[in-house]
Amino acid sequence: MVHPDLMKVSNLLVNSADKVLLARNEAIDEAWQQILQDNISINIERGIPSPAQLALSQPLLDAPLSGGYIDVDGTDSRNYGQQQGLPIIRELFSPFMGVPADQIVAHGSSSLGLMYDTVSWAVRHGVPGSDTPWSKVKDATFICIIPGYDRHFAICEEFGLNMIVVPMLDDGPDMVAVENICRQYPNIKGIWCVPKYSNPTGTVYSDKVIEALASMETAAPDFRIFWDNAYCVHPLAENDRELASIYDACVRHGNPDRVLIYSSTSKMTLPGAGVAFMGASATNTAWWLRHATVRSVGPDKVNQLRQARFLKSPENIRALMEQHRQLLKPKFELVNTIFSEVLGCQQHVSWTRPEGGYFISLHVLPGTASRIVQLAAEAGVRFARSGSCYPYGRDINDAQLRIAPSWPETEQLRLALRVIAICIAKATAEKLL
Amino acid sequence: MVHPDLMKVSNLLVNSADKVLLARNEAIDEAWQQILQDNISINIERGIPSPAQLALSQPLLDAPLSGGYIDVDGTDSRNYGQQQGLPIIRELFSPFMGVPADQIVAHGSSSLGLMYDTVSWAVRHGVPGSDTPWSKVKDATFICIIPGYDRHFAICEEFGLNMIVVPMLDDGPDMVAVENICRQYPNIKGIWCVPKYSNPTGTVYSDKVIEALASMETAAPDFRIFWDNAYCVHPLAENDRELASIYDACVRHGNPDRVLIYSSTSKMTLPGAGVAFMGASATNTAWWLRHATVRSVGPDKVNQLRQARFLKSPENIRALMEQHRQLLKPKFELVNTIFSEVLGCQQHVSWTRPEGGYFISLHVLPGTASRIVQLAAEAGVRFARSGSCYPYGRDINDAQLRIAPSWPETEQLRLALRVIAICIAKATAEKLL
Repeated sequence: MVHPDLMKVSNLLVNSADKVLLARNEAIDEAWQQILQDNISINIERGIPSPAQLALSQPLLDAPLSGGYIDVDGTDSRNYGQQQGLPIIRELFSPFMGVPADQIVAHGSSSLGLMYDTVSWAVRHGVPGSDTPWSKVKDATFICIIPGYDRHFAICEEFGLNMIVVPMLDDGPDMVAVENICRQYPNIKGIWCVPKYSNPTGTVYSDKVIEALASMETAAPDFRIFWDNAYCVHPLAENDRELASIYDACVRHGNPDRVLIYSSTSKMTLPGAGVAFMGASATNTAWWLRHATVRSVGPDKVNQLRQARFLKSPENIRALMEQHRQLLKPKFELVNTIFSEVLGCQQHVSWTRPEGGYFISLHVLPGTASRIVQLAAEAGVRFARSGSCYPYGRDINDAQLRIAPSWPETEQLRLALRVIAICIAKATAEKLL
Repeated sequence: MVHPDLMKVSNLLVNSADKVLLARNEAIDEAWQQILQDNISINIERGIPSPAQLALSQPLLDAPLSGGYIDVDGTDSRNYGQQQGLPIIRELFSPFMGVPADQIVAHGSSSLGLMYDTVSWAVRHGVPGSDTPWSKVKDATFICIIPGYDRHFAICEEFGLNMIVVPMLDDGPDMVAVENICRQYPNIKGIWCVPKYSNPTGTVYSDKVIEALASMETAAPDFRIFWDNAYCVHPLAENDRELASIYDACVRHGNPDRVLIYSSTSKMTLPGAGVAFMGASATNTAWWLRHATVRSVGPDKVNQLRQARFLKSPENIRALMEQHRQLLKPKFELVNTIFSEVLGCQQHVSWTRPEGGYFISLHVLPGTASRIVQLAAEAGVRFARSGSCYPYGRDINDAQLRIAPSWPETEQLRLALRVIAICIAKATAEKLL
């Protein structure tokens, strides 16, 4: 149930006639004063699985391996070597990556680390298709879809790569803009994509968008799509959405080297002990491994074996993800319920209702996002950084925030959402008055 | 027992009078022809622990963790975060690193990866003490002690860093040369050191050398010692050698930021599933973590917990390393025995008798090392790449090779060593004739 205060605020917000502005503001202030007295301290800033979700992978912690650490190909998982990772785990993830197992690398516990290394090597050495390192390209630039994932943008910033923004539409990025930019400018070297249940909008790329990305003309011969398929099998709705294979599309259009696909077990099993993957053309994979070999003697293969034994099969992975879904769905519904009741009739506020993934994108009255964050922090709730979904952390409209409801328990989440809703109402009223 | 053929070769080699050269050559050729018929296929190229050594850590594979994945500080090892690694494993390794636990980073499974990342960030951003990235320094150069570790040199090559060589003496690098170079040239930015049971010479740095490294004048304010203490507790002799704390010495001489210390559990537990460490001043560690945070959300902490539970205490680690020693020692003795018997009186051949570590450095008649490798390969034994212990893989004297006896079983090792010895004899005779 929604707190009566919020209902009051909500009812007042419905009426936007000038004559009630003062009364509305008083009601909001009353709710605000009350939450200040509640001594709340909640941090729901990042998309972190809850302890109940982690418990689903409990058998992974205790999985006895002494019986078989020798993989089918004879590799001793315990020893050095096998830079590409164990075949058993690469084969298991091949259906989710849409790339043959022998073109997949399983390495480390962080797919972000694999993306970072890829960019690092591209900047230093260039990628197949060009001899020019991206560091030698004047104004080498990535297309960043907004709102998007802050850690992607941080990698560009770290490597001094420019960022040009393109808006996210309902079925993926604005492809008219993407195609125009890519066709015209040879310094456009890459694009960051979270193609399924996108962070933070929940968008699933349509077949048409994927086809366009794979086939479009690019002025740069060494243009790369960084396909961060972090939520490849992470539905919130009953039916998982299908995503067309970008690798197949790229091959079909004669651009097999265009895409680099990333995924991990982080939000399937344990974020603190996952296995990360990169899949691409044989040319790209060989290039990647050549540089990886200078960096290390090989990945943690015992963990790969452990994960493969626990996850067993694609069917078993889907069954595990259904258990995650059962835990996550009520939390996402709670956001929608509380926000709908409190702010549903507020024309200045909207939010996404994602079919999967970990985030809700909240769109507020321009000029209020950072004030909402500030107010929530005063009331003890850290839930977002304004601008974090934009390159350089700058949302010029100051109008978007990310909600990550996965981690807290229901009652904590309810409390946090109530605070956030009151802060939205307060900041909106302040701005409109 | 040494094969009679070898004894014959050995006896002949003793006599270097011209008149027996022909007879000697014939005896060697006879031994050579025979090994060609043996259809041998052995690869002992790299320093890899044997299956018997890996079995010492068998309980690590099966260690049940379900009882406690929450660290003493409340960190849930299973989830994201804790970029610096778990306190429990950092505290355990603090005595071996010679750095307080809160200045240690535990991250990933490869200390080489941590070194690589450090160089990468220094090249791109510079290190504390200077605002100039090493990539902007004309002819940024590392001192490479020869013979040394090929993977260190490969990192320099990858990042376009120049390498200047300094010979290894009995108690560490030639410090007169190191001090002269560092004092004069501000483009000298680093030195690679394996200070204990050095790869490949087995050298242990003396207190005097460590004191000199810590106190010497450097023209570069941002000079860094990369202290790869890979064999920090890996003796072959009964008593482990003591190594002075370079960090303490650097602090004492007012150069706390000079040294970056690396280690790992790779050759304690499982090379394919280890935990790697970097320890340094608080300033350096904070700098490192700032860049690491762009690369990943955090390390595999479950494996850190697993390793900490298995390794328990410094005393327990020493006891485990004693078991490794018992398995390794006979293999190193076998090299010495066979080489002594066959080649002991050969004035052109010498080899190290290390008190620890994983390697023996073999010094042969100049101009014969690559021929020896080639002959051994023809006879089915891959044991070294000539020049691999030198920058760019170039040993201008063609006179040094690395022996790694850890991996094969005794009989395989005996066979391989016999082949190598015959090849040394043959190449030496070819050259002298």
